[in-house]
Amino acid sequence: MVEQEVVSKAKKCKEAARGLAYLSTEIKNSALTAMADSLIKNTQRIIEANSLDIKAGREQGLSRALIDRLLLTPERIKDMADGLNVVVALPDPVGCVEAMWNLPNGLQVGKVSVPLGVIGIIYEARPNVTVDAAGLCLKAGNTVLLRGGSEAIHSNKVIAEVIANAATTAGIPEGAIQLLESTDRAAVNVMLKLNEYLDVLIPRGGAGLIQTVVQNATVPVIETGVGNCHVYVDSDADLGMAQNIIINAKCQRPGVCNAMETLLVHKAVAGSLLPLLCDKLKDFGVELRGCERTRRIVGVKTATEDDWGREFLDLILAIKVVEDLDSAMDHIYRYGTRHSEAIITNNYSHSRRFLKEVDAAAVYVNASTRFTDGFQFGFGAEIGISTQKLHTRGPMGLKELTTNKFIIYGEGQVRE
Amino acid sequence: MVEQEVVSKAKKCKEAARGLAYLSTEIKNSALTAMADSLIKNTQRIIEANSLDIKAGREQGLSRALIDRLLLTPERIKDMADGLNVVVALPDPVGCVEAMWNLPNGLQVGKVSVPLGVIGIIYEARPNVTVDAAGLCLKAGNTVLLRGGSEAIHSNKVIAEVIANAATTAGIPEGAIQLLESTDRAAVNVMLKLNEYLDVLIPRGGAGLIQTVVQNATVPVIETGVGNCHVYVDSDADLGMAQNIIINAKCQRPGVCNAMETLLVHKAVAGSLLPLLCDKLKDFGVELRGCERTRRIVGVKTATEDDWGREFLDLILAIKVVEDLDSAMDHIYRYGTRHSEAIITNNYSHSRRFLKEVDAAAVYVNASTRFTDGFQFGFGAEIGISTQKLHTRGPMGLKELTTNKFIIYGEGQVRE
Repeated sequence: MVEQEVVSKAKKCKEAARGLAYLSTEIKNSALTAMADSLIKNTQRIIEANSLDIKAGREQGLSRALIDRLLLTPERIKDMADGLNVVVALPDPVGCVEAMWNLPNGLQVGKVSVPLGVIGIIYEARPNVTVDAAGLCLKAGNTVLLRGGSEAIHSNKVIAEVIANAATTAGIPEGAIQLLESTDRAAVNVMLKLNEYLDVLIPRGGAGLIQTVVQNATVPVIETGVGNCHVYVDSDADLGMAQNIIINAKCQRPGVCNAMETLLVHKAVAGSLLPLLCDKLKDFGVELRGCERTRRIVGVKTATEDDWGREFLDLILAIKVVEDLDSAMDHIYRYGTRHSEAIITNNYSHSRRFLKEVDAAAVYVNASTRFTDGFQFGFGAEIGISTQKLHTRGPMGLKELTTNKFIIYGEGQVRE
Repeated sequence: MVEQEVVSKAKKCKEAARGLAYLSTEIKNSALTAMADSLIKNTQRIIEANSLDIKAGREQGLSRALIDRLLLTPERIKDMADGLNVVVALPDPVGCVEAMWNLPNGLQVGKVSVPLGVIGIIYEARPNVTVDAAGLCLKAGNTVLLRGGSEAIHSNKVIAEVIANAATTAGIPEGAIQLLESTDRAAVNVMLKLNEYLDVLIPRGGAGLIQTVVQNATVPVIETGVGNCHVYVDSDADLGMAQNIIINAKCQRPGVCNAMETLLVHKAVAGSLLPLLCDKLKDFGVELRGCERTRRIVGVKTATEDDWGREFLDLILAIKVVEDLDSAMDHIYRYGTRHSEAIITNNYSHSRRFLKEVDAAAVYVNASTRFTDGFQFGFGAEIGISTQKLHTRGPMGLKELTTNKFIIYGEGQVRE
């Protein structure tokens, strides 16, 4: 029965994708506006459904943080609606001719952006993702099969119904936005192998979920997730700037993938930077773990081999004093997850080498790693941050929800 | 032992990838030139090794076509070397700043092309792929783990040794080009799951090989392959042009993925087009299979449901007479594999609708489907034709062997 639901909904998504792919920007935008309006209009219904999820979550003993993630208020529903209106204002990523050129035989070839087709989104107990993902996929001309976490199922069902109805009324092909009511792993397992109907899978959530998808999917996957990010303070750094950036990268929001997990400090400045910095970090409640050289300067716990490789996602920081730029880059190469890496320096050639030689989705000079984010980068929206290399790497906006086709204008050309 | 070989070579590829990623164009080009020279210099050795493969192939009763594919001659070795020299002349796809923009907070963000990293190429008994794939991967800054078919193992071993040594001598990190000596399926199976060391897999070969890779890989795959391509002759077509294009698309090289497999003809022109066309196609040795309406016009076998969905890869053509443009596009939607589709028409709005509404890697107006090819499109080279939507679709040149990173120049910016 689970399989039946997944297959039949995925099939409908595929059917709807054909027409949605070349729908006008006007219709897509009016649908997004209607979805936003309908969310506001149905605030009461959504909150009633949400209260069932909250009640069940409390009975199951979910953590306060998880309950907070689940909770919807009129304000949060308004935020979701506002998010859709932001997407309305973004340029349509479909149908852009990226390049057009002439071949010697007179053929004119153009490379045009087109929708990916059907996107499967597998996510956890965040009802806002339902709206967010549906809106972005729709604007990029894709249909979407949503599979949210069981904890949010009551909320998700009402939200999906509300936005899907609004979309259909506005002229989007029926079936373009669909939510699976089956929330168990079996539903995910069916999605993972449904190459016939799904073009791409995007898992959004914890490392466990993402690994399950990566390890078992035959449908192409965009992996998102893990960030073991470093800030390296070079010998030529402005130490005041370094301190601000370190505190921001660690403390502004420690639970996210672009937060710093390990601080690397050039030996020449460790003595002047670490004492004051560590006091401040402790004031922010950060637990510090250092290498032996760090511990000779400040009183912190010993960092283990395991700490260098960990994404703490918490107020914990590992600190290592390094010989030079090369040792810092070696450490990042060995332990980094190619997400976001920063150097603080005023040395021109060191900045150039770091930007060139460090392989990561985002490489910074003199700025906090916390900026790796589609909104911050100016994309206006973000469906996730790719941590793989295929398709794209780093924050993914609307453009990254498209692929290309080639169009060729001829006058009877044949191949010799 | 097989696993040990694959893992240790993949690990070396990964280690070599770090330095290769930011090597200068100059060094990469001098390595490619040295590889080409070394192939010519070692012609005799390569031919001796190749004769072992040919002998074994004949003993195993390989078909004449397969033996011909395997066979190396001084001329064919020169062609491989020439291919490398063509790659030298192509622009370096690495390090291109595709875009750079300023954020309101003063951060300057750039999107830069960087190598994918380590590419695994899984292919069949074509020794030229060894040179071709290694050269393209190298120019795009990637290391490559090659796994060729067992039938070509003697040739491949010598070729890989020759080009890898030339590359290393020219300054490419050791281990950047590696060939697996294990040619059984077990070696492939290890590659498919080696996410730790391999960034991307590209299978090149028959449908069976490609499906094995797609169905079992956890490493991201670029699927290449199947093309069930159509030519649709519209009511407003120039029938002389249509005839030339059809003959070219079917007969010029029937065994390739961009050859036409089904001809769709508007009912208004079927009577005037088909009799003469079918005679000509028969002269080319094409076996014709038609729908009932076709059979009322010309004497051909009945096309079965199965024929519409088949990639014949042979001198066989299915023919269907359709009501109008919409029926033609419906047929293509139902049976096509989204590879290459063509309309022959002089009707402006029909040409626009076909280009927009037909979803395929390449959509043509008034030209043969046979042009879907990286060399023909002007990319100068081709590693394969992607038939999936993730990453890219259609012919893949050097640019498609790269991904991106974001580089960010700051002056101490932190996130609010």
